[in-house]
Parts: sequence; structure tokens; C-alpha cells
Amino acid sequence: MPLNIKQKKAIRKLLHFRSPRLTRTLEKLHPADIADLFQELNDREIPELIHALAQTGMAGQTLDELPEGILKNVLELIDDNLLVLIVNRLEPDSAVDFLQLLDEERQQRIVQQLPAPVRKRFQKLLSYEEDTAGALMTPDVFALPVDSTAQDAIDRIREAGDKLEAIFYLYVVDHERKLVGVVSLRQLILASPDTQLQDLMSLHPVSANVHDDQEHVSALVAKYDFLSIPVVDDQGVLVGVITVDDVIDVLEEEATEDFYHMAGLNDQERVFTPVMESVKMRIGWVLLNLVTASVAAAVVGVFEHKIAEAAVLATFMPLVAGMGGNSGSQTLAILVRGIALGELAFSKVWQTVLKKAAIGLILGLIAGGIAAILAYILHSNPWIGLVLFLAMAINMAFGALIGAIVPILLRALKKDPALGSGILVTALTDSVGYLVLFGISWMMWGRIVGH
Amino acid sequence: MPLNIKQKKAIRKLLHFRSPRLTRTLEKLHPADIADLFQELNDREIPELIHALAQTGMAGQTLDELPEGILKNVLELIDDNLLVLIVNRLEPDSAVDFLQLLDEERQQRIVQQLPAPVRKRFQKLLSYEEDTAGALMTPDVFALPVDSTAQDAIDRIREAGDKLEAIFYLYVVDHERKLVGVVSLRQLILASPDTQLQDLMSLHPVSANVHDDQEHVSALVAKYDFLSIPVVDDQGVLVGVITVDDVIDVLEEEATEDFYHMAGLNDQERVFTPVMESVKMRIGWVLLNLVTASVAAAVVGVFEHKIAEAAVLATFMPLVAGMGGNSGSQTLAILVRGIALGELAFSKVWQTVLKKAAIGLILGLIAGGIAAILAYILHSNPWIGLVLFLAMAINMAFGALIGAIVPILLRALKKDPALGSGILVTALTDSVGYLVLFGISWMMWGRIVGH
Repeated sequence: MPLNIKQKKAIRKLLHFRSPRLTRTLEKLHPADIADLFQELNDREIPELIHALAQTGMAGQTLDELPEGILKNVLELIDDNLLVLIVNRLEPDSAVDFLQLLDEERQQRIVQQLPAPVRKRFQKLLSYEEDTAGALMTPDVFALPVDSTAQDAIDRIREAGDKLEAIFYLYVVDHERKLVGVVSLRQLILASPDTQLQDLMSLHPVSANVHDDQEHVSALVAKYDFLSIPVVDDQGVLVGVITVDDVIDVLEEEATEDFYHMAGLNDQERVFTPVMESVKMRIGWVLLNLVTASVAAAVVGVFEHKIAEAAVLATFMPLVAGMGGNSGSQTLAILVRGIALGELAFSKVWQTVLKKAAIGLILGLIAGGIAAILAYILHSNPWIGLVLFLAMAINMAFGALIGAIVPILLRALKKDPALGSGILVTALTDSVGYLVLFGISWMMWGRIVGH
Repeated sequence: MPLNIKQKKAIRKLLHFRSPRLTRTLEKLHPADIADLFQELNDREIPELIHALAQTGMAGQTLDELPEGILKNVLELIDDNLLVLIVNRLEPDSAVDFLQLLDEERQQRIVQQLPAPVRKRFQKLLSYEEDTAGALMTPDVFALPVDSTAQDAIDRIREAGDKLEAIFYLYVVDHERKLVGVVSLRQLILASPDTQLQDLMSLHPVSANVHDDQEHVSALVAKYDFLSIPVVDDQGVLVGVITVDDVIDVLEEEATEDFYHMAGLNDQERVFTPVMESVKMRIGWVLLNLVTASVAAAVVGVFEHKIAEAAVLATFMPLVAGMGGNSGSQTLAILVRGIALGELAFSKVWQTVLKKAAIGLILGLIAGGIAAILAYILHSNPWIGLVLFLAMAINMAFGALIGAIVPILLRALKKDPALGSGILVTALTDSVGYLVLFGISWMMWGRIVGH
């Protein structure tokens, strides 16, 4: 259970006095709860805590619970010797996550100090591209040949003891170690001891290829409610397994990424990122946004002399741009999420786009209608009302249209459907909104100013 | 593995000819893959498919894979008798999900036709508030008394056979059925047959209360990497269990909700929602947005006569409002996600707010500086540049400030931190942006127009 304030204070005190009781206190806690402490400790306390954790053998597991941004900083506070010790004890998939956060020079230094067999396995894992099944999996996969019996399997699980990460399924392989079947732990308990695995197993288990994108693999696990999924190489040889807890992390990470990309953010920024680092991460997007906002400003600039004659049009700018932008963001949110959850059936893409545009148009006719009536009452000029009505209806329909098209196009171009889409959609609804507003006014100028 | 286009066509053909081969084809498929078919079938084909699925006993599992919005419509296409049959066969947690989608009258009609013991269980589950652990759990939890042996446990698992939903842990209860411990299936296999569960179990297992929010429970499962979490009532009595596959669904649902709420969307709208239903869902938000946009328009309206004198200020409106709004949305995305992932430590709330505002200010000084220099060059009036510089810097700092404050305040008020926050933040950055832009101009009016 999460630590309360009293417990946190007590641990800080023990840290401060370098009390030998610290390790005993830590041993009783869950690594995920100890990890919560790190946000509150300073750069002197953190290495002390890690040293104490290392004595209990919990250092790796605890650090593994930290958000990536914090872990990266924490790793810089630990000396090489301790880090080698921690990495050597970690599950291979977590160890690789740690190593990937180091700069290349330090990564190589740490890997060189690892025992030869461990080093070789890690180097193999590090060779897979980031965000692939290969980089996510652990190579410690529990598999037995088809001609083993249920009793063999149970004996092997007993032997392995705590060495294996949580076993959920027993994978069955042929003599070339190619994946041929799967047996659940429950089926194993239910089976009579001399049953052969080939009579017990389900054939053609769903598996991932080492090069598959981690997002795709996670969607499979979520879809079929798996606890783990086996990973095979291009020859069908079983090389690893991905467990559901890692899949949950990927799903959370991908949702965060979509959120951030829509708003035009670097995926690394968190609530705890230092100010100047955040500024560096965002400055590129801000400058891009400055360009898109300048385009909208230029559109208004074209009509500057008209605005001087009929300043009332300037008051319509927030209505046309704001409502159009919102219509775009709403459609965007639905499409980005629909793509992430696999709800967008490929065959109906254009139907979806037209549907969303129709929704935007209908809402635009309603909102534009109300706004137009109010404008007519305020300015007692029906033509001013008509301009506002048309501009709002057109821009809200346009917002919905591009809110649907932008993520679909980005996906078709094999880009992230959310990447910068919010900025792009708002920029377009701003510019097109002003163009439509002033363009239509221009066409009926006599009616607007002559009244 | 997902169906390809050929397989889908073949199934539609079998449906069309009401071929007896249909059930044999379906039996070989995974329910999650059959569910993908529903998006492409019409209202006549869907009931036919469900009838065929009912014959194979897969109807419930398949329907359970449908997104809520589609399931609701599909349930309306099935007659009462068939629905009773399907609901009766489902796991209780899924059955309750189905029943909750029906209108109250039909729900009662269906529940009344169920066998008495099933009815009683379902009524109990239906009594829990929506989105609580009680509503999410299945009451089929596998538990044994503390004085049972490992062999007893294995025998009981054998007896239960397929009746229990996936068993991951064995929960241990005292004579009042209060939860006292947990044994993993793996520990059970490793133990010698006559060990008592009390010597095997881990004490004080993390559990959820029936009234806990499902979001909170899911965060616990994700944090501790559990496969399932036991649910207890207010007396500590074990009443159910929530499995990791349901937790994944909740996490996906909550991420979607945050996305939608930020954009001002009803959580039910999906890519496949019919146009008029979407319009009905969104109209409330659109009207609210119309009010907030009108406030911004009113702010501009106050300065209408000034704009007529210096229309150049209208060209700055998209820059000040757009950049401020984006600064707000970015901060909002970080805070909403930070709250959802539990990354926002309670103790540092105000520090976080100030930090984000500082980031907005620094970026505002940079972007405002660049824009001001360009404006100065274009209009050869340094005062016009100064106005733009100040307005952008202030509005971008303000956007970041309220982008952080709005979700924190909403959470403090026990509201969803994302609810309508996007609309609120944009409305505020629009209005305040225009106020600052024209307000500052007014203060140095002689310098702006007199030049």
C-alpha cells in the first residue's frame, strides 16, 4: 500500500542518520511504493537510498518503477560499479531499458564490465530497434519440446524456481525451437502427469515477430486478453516473451504520446521536468506555431483596410476561428483515438470523413444561425448576420473535415496520426476562417458598410 | 489472427445462404476476430450471425468484444429470448455490462426471465454504482480457507475445471470469509502437497473496496504489475476479483475519456456513431463554446472604435490568441496526463504550476520577441512591436498558468481534471489575450496611431 507522510518522513530520517535500520524498513516495502519517494529526495539522498536498496537486492526493481524522465537523471547519480551490479541483477528486458537511457560511451563502459554471457544477451537485445517487440521482450522464455509430459513441465517449473519471470503459459517448441503450441498453467495442473504436451497444447498460438512495432503487439495482447505473447524471429524460432505488465506500460505510453503529439509536445516532458529543459523541448514547436499563426495574421493583414472601414468584422474573428478550431479538435480527438483503438475500419475511411464533416456542418448551421440572429439584433443589419452565419457554418464544416483528414493522411504517410495535428488543424481553421469571413464580407461590401 | 477480406466475404456468403457450414466456420475463429465483422454487416445480417453464434455457444463472448457504442445498437436487434440465453451464459461481470446498456424496462424484463440464483447475483452486481470496483468485478472468485493444504487447492482447481474465469492467484480467507492472504499458482505448484496455505501465503494482499473508483483500482493493478486484484466489502469480506484484461479496458477507456473531455466531447461518440446522434451529443458543448467565444468577441467589441483607427491591431489577434491558446493546451496535456498516471506528487502542486508558468513566460518572451521585431520592420513603429511583444509574452505565460491551474482545480473539486478544460483554457486565453493586446495599445495610443 502507498506510503503515508509519516512513513516517508521516517525513511528520510533513517537516510539522514545512515541508520542500519534503513535496510530492514525497506525490505518490508513494495518497490513501487519506494519509487514514490524519489520525487521528494534531493541529489545527495538519492544515491544513499540506492546504496541501501542495493544491500537488500531491491535497487533494480525499485528503479524500474520510476518514470523514464526521472530514471535517466537518477542513473547519472550512481557510480559505474554500483550500476554494473544493479544491471547485472535485473531482468534482461528492464536491464536493456536502463542501458538505453545512458549516453553511448557510458553504455559501452557498463556493458563491458558485465560477465561475458550476460553481455552477449544484452548486446543482442540492444541490437533491436527501439519500440519493437524485440526491444520490449525478455529472452527468458519458458519453453519445452512437444514430446515432454505434463510431469516434465511441472518438474521444470519447480527447478526453475524464482529464476524465471512470472510464468503464465508454457510454450511448446519443435526440435528446431520453432514455436508450435501453447499450454496454460491451468491446463497443466488439470492434466494427468503422463499426458504429452502435444496432446495438451493449443496449436498456432498468436505470436509477435521481433521486428513488430510495440504498439501493434500491445493491441494484440489487449484484443485477445492475453497475459503474455511469445516473440519469434523471421524463421519462427521462439526468442522471447512479452508480458501483460509491459503491455500496460506501452499502452499508457502510447496514449500519452498521442496526447502530447496533438498539442505539439515532445514526449519526454513531464510535470517534473526542469524549466529550461522544457523550454528546449518546446521551442521548436513554438517557432513552428509562430509561423502558422503568422500565416493567419497575414490573412487578416490582407484585409486590414477593410477592417478599418468595418471594425465590427474584427469582433467576429474569435467566433469564426474559435468555433472552427473547436470543431476541428473534436473530430481530431475522435479520429486519433479511433485509430489507436483500431476502431477505424479501413474500408470506411471516406465515409467516416464525410460523416464527420456533415456533423460539423450541421453544428455550424445551428451555432452560426444563433450567432447571426444575435449579430442582426445588435447591429440591425441582416447582411452582417448573413456574413457571420456563412463564415461560421463553412469554417465549422471545414474544421471537422480536416480534423478527420489530417490524422488519416498522416497515417497513410506512415507518420504518427497525432503528430502536431492539433497545431496544424488550428492553423488551418484560423486562416481559412478569416479568409472566409473577410472574403464573403468583401463580396457584399456595399451591404455591410453602406447600411 | 485477424480475418482477411476473403474470409470476411466467405462468411457473408454463408450468412446470405443460411448455410449450415457457417457454425463450423465460426467455431474455428477467435471471438475477438468475429467481432471485427460486425462493423461491416447490415441490420438483417447481424441477428443471423448472432443466432449462428448462439448455436456454437460463442455469442456472448463475441458480443463482449464489441465497442460499447456498437454493442448497444446490436442488443436492440436481438429478441428477448435469445438475449436471456446469451446473458445467462456470460461471466457475471460481462453480463452486467450488457444489462446496463439496455433501457430500464427491458433490463428488468430480461433479469426476471433468468433463473432465480443467477438473477439474485446479477441484481447484487447491478446495485453497485457505475465505474466502481463492484460494478467491474466478477463475483466468481476462487478462495479457500487458511487451513486448506496445497493438495486441497489443486484438487479444487481440477474440480472447478472451466467454470472459473482465468485463475491467477488463489485467495485465502478466514472463517468469516475475510481476505487474509494470497498464493500464486506458481507457489502452489512449487509447494509440497501437504503444506497449509497459511504457511504458503503472502499476508496483507493489496485489495480494492467495492466502492472504489475503477480508475483508482486500475492504477493500483498497473502500479504493482498484478494479474488480478481481490475486491472486498466494507467488512473486509472477499466478494469478487478484477482481472488484468478488464483493467486494460478501463485504462483505455479512461485515456479516451481524457482525450474527449479536453476537446469537449461526450465519451460515447466514436468514428462509427451516426451523424444525428453525434450532433445531439455535441450540441451542448457547441452552445457552451458559443458562449465562451462570444465573451471573447465581446472583449474585441469593447475596442471596436480603436480597431477602426488602428486596424493593424486586428492582424495581431491570431498571434496573441493562437500562441496563448497553444501554450495553454500544451501545459494542459502534461497536467491531465500527469494526474492520470499519478506523476503529480501532491506536495509539489504549486511548484509545478509556477514551473509551467515560467516555461510559458520564457517561450512567450522568445516568440514575442521574434514577432515584435518582424512587426517593427513591417510597420516601422517600435511601439507597435512593443505592444505585440508584451501581449504575446503575457498571454503565453497566462496560458501556461491556467493550463496548469484548471485541471488541478477541477481535481480538487472532485471533478474530472480534463472535463471541458480545453474549451475553458482556449476561451480564457482568447479573452485575456485580446484584453491585454487592446488594453496595452490603449495605454500607449498616441504612440500607436500618432506615428
